[in-house]
Amino acid sequence: MEYIKKTAEGIAKHALEVISCIDEEQVELMVECINEADSTFIVGSGRSELVGKAFAMRLMHLGFRVYVVGDVTTPALTDEDCLIAISGSGETKTVTLAAKTAKEVGTQVIGVTTDLGSTLGKNADVVVNIDSKSKVPWKYYTSHVLKGNYDDLTPMGTLFEDSTHLFLDGLIASFMVRLNKKETDLEKLHSQDR
Amino acid sequence: MEYIKKTAEGIAKHALEVISCIDEEQVELMVECINEADSTFIVGSGRSELVGKAFAMRLMHLGFRVYVVGDVTTPALTDEDCLIAISGSGETKTVTLAAKTAKEVGTQVIGVTTDLGSTLGKNADVVVNIDSKSKVPWKYYTSHVLKGNYDDLTPMGTLFEDSTHLFLDGLIASFMVRLNKKETDLEKLHSQDR
Amino acid sequence: MEYIKKTAEGIAKHALEVISCIDEEQVELMVECINEADSTFIVGSGRSELVGKAFAMRLMHLGFRVYVVGDVTTPALTDEDCLIAISGSGETKTVTLAAKTAKEVGTQVIGVTTDLGSTLGKNADVVVNIDSKSKVPWKYYTSHVLKGNYDDLTPMGTLFEDSTHLFLDGLIASFMVRLNKKETDLEKLHSQDR
Amino acid sequence: MEYIKKTAEGIAKHALEVISCIDEEQVELMVECINEADSTFIVGSGRSELVGKAFAMRLMHLGFRVYVVGDVTTPALTDEDCLIAISGSGETKTVTLAAKTAKEVGTQVIGVTTDLGSTLGKNADVVVNIDSKSKVPWKYYTSHVLKGNYDDLTPMGTLFEDSTHLFLDGLIASFMVRLNKKETDLEKLHSQDR
Repeated sequence: MEYIKKTAEGIAKHALEVISCIDEEQVELMVECINEADSTFIVGSGRSELVGKAFAMRLMHLGFRVYVVGDVTTPALTDEDCLIAISGSGETKTVTLAAKTAKEVGTQVIGVTTDLGSTLGKNADVVVNIDSKSKVPWKYYTSHVLKGNYDDLTPMGTLFEDSTHLFLDGLIASFMVRLNKKETDLEKLHSQDR
Repeated sequence: MEYIKKTAEGIAKHALEVISCIDEEQVELMVECINEADSTFIVGSGRSELVGKAFAMRLMHLGFRVYVVGDVTTPALTDEDCLIAISGSGETKTVTLAAKTAKEVGTQVIGVTTDLGSTLGKNADVVVNIDSKSKVPWKYYTSHVLKGNYDDLTPMGTLFEDSTHLFLDGLIASFMVRLNKKETDLEKLHSQDR
Repeated sequence: MEYIKKTAEGIAKHALEVISCIDEEQVELMVECINEADSTFIVGSGRSELVGKAFAMRLMHLGFRVYVVGDVTTPALTDEDCLIAISGSGETKTVTLAAKTAKEVGTQVIGVTTDLGSTLGKNADVVVNIDSKSKVPWKYYTSHVLKGNYDDLTPMGTLFEDSTHLFLDGLIASFMVRLNKKETDLEKLHSQDR
Repeated sequence: MEYIKKTAEGIAKHALEVISCIDEEQVELMVECINEADSTFIVGSGRSELVGKAFAMRLMHLGFRVYVVGDVTTPALTDEDCLIAISGSGETKTVTLAAKTAKEVGTQVIGVTTDLGSTLGKNADVVVNIDSKSKVPWKYYTSHVLKGNYDDLTPMGTLFEDSTHLFLDGLIASFMVRLNKKETDLEKLHSQDR
């Protein structure tokens, strides 16, 4: 249990630090985009896609029309939609491709990434910077935030993904306050099997 | 940002408390089950399934053979496998059904739930208790841990899901130490698109 | 290639026979249900789910609001919706469970099955009978339509799934005629990556 | 029912013609690739992905190790694997990207496409040509095989997808004969919920 607790503490501490550094203006723009969009589309790959899906479900519970890129019922992007593109490195091909298509069509792109200078970071209309970036150069995005023996116990995108997940659950809370929605309102839209 | 930060802090604090209460013996049994199983199967519904999938991916990176129930390439359960069944209420039908089939076949069932007395809690061979349970009676599983104005800003299973997610990422760290795996070992098995 | 061609011919021949036996009235009722529903939900397991998803995508292209049960953005069923439940045996648990919930809520249930006397067949409001049923008793649903050496070259639900798939693609054509939609109309809603 | 029957007949007739034109040598190479590979990976987008998944499931039932690109438990490609890449146009970005990665890594690429001259067609080691190609120039892949009033009743990739699906189910039959597998052998690996 020692490693479990220390790692969980390390991830939680890191996530809260990272969230406290997010540019408030970009978050406001993100909220506006979602509020004004006809539909909100979510794209990510691997665990970033899972984080995006967890957020997508709650947006749906809040009453927004939401689609996950790659789902069979997801329609074409239009200039009345917004796309939330999640990629730690900002270079995941399936994500940058979707962002590129979105730009061509006129869809507002909200990038969630560690790297403002990445393909995603540079091309998004709104960028939420999850600053889980490693300081050491590395072939891929990696995080070495946990010091000492715990250096690589949060492998690959873990810190980015978990920080993003916590931020997005916070954002749901923020939407509940803005939209004056109670838990019971969300319940009504929750799929019956649980 | 105020609600985002306070909610994130509330979730993180709750998750760490819940993790510190998990029975160490059950975690040891869970680790043994996974280590000794031919294959590890994961089942969950909704956001609990997403949490299970995030864990499944890292188990695969560690070199384990892992399947998600419902994926097209997932084979039949056997008595040499283990099933990790994730359900906050312990009553989600698709999850308890999979656990029932597993029991009949002789598959070891690891339940991850808030309720030891639930269908899942009572029937699992190993139970990891994520104690995010509400004290007030309620039709479905809900969590009211955040006090004051934040009472329902973590709607439905949020606290259970996020606590389980953090616990399972801690468990991955624990496996890395036990198996003496470095991040670079996990990299090798990581799908190339990221 | 010999087995490939003979099997493909066998499947195609069987599917066309089965389609010609479908009760026209039930198909009319199915079309009405979809036309009048607020949203159409699709549920199936395994290859039947894939067949349902292929249909769901085209319904979306036609302009219908469609959801696949189990997708993260799928909301709760209501009494203004219809559920298309696909199961060869009519006994697949995840499918009959969804149909049961639908009935309780007042959702119209359209069953697509080989067995009118199955749990799904008996409980659905509309039943499209895909008559791929085996005449010999068998633990599970199986099909032994191809005679001679080809007896089991269409294993398990293959004939049911492929017949259902062909029927549903025919139904899309029928919708195009009724709604006076051209291929170019469907193009507009088609996701941009292809 | 008239349009349903005529469309189903049109699709079935077209699929059988297309299958009879497939180069036998390429099919033999495809079979060898799958037989010799450590693991078989499947990639497609939209309905082509669904067709690939239906094939993936049966390959798993036959005892092959199979992964779908994008699934959370799918590992990195290696030079001991083969990738079946399905795209009507041969230009679907997510598919050509996966094929490109595969080539770099040394994975054998089996392309299934209408266009031998497409990016996928030119770069695959083995190409199964599903000749559902339109003769008229068109922005995207379309099929206008059904004549008369039925010209566009099989919108977009329908004919390619359905022909590929029928071919692949034929290929499963062919594998059953080669590997001397009975339906009961496949049953054993079939997931218990059905």
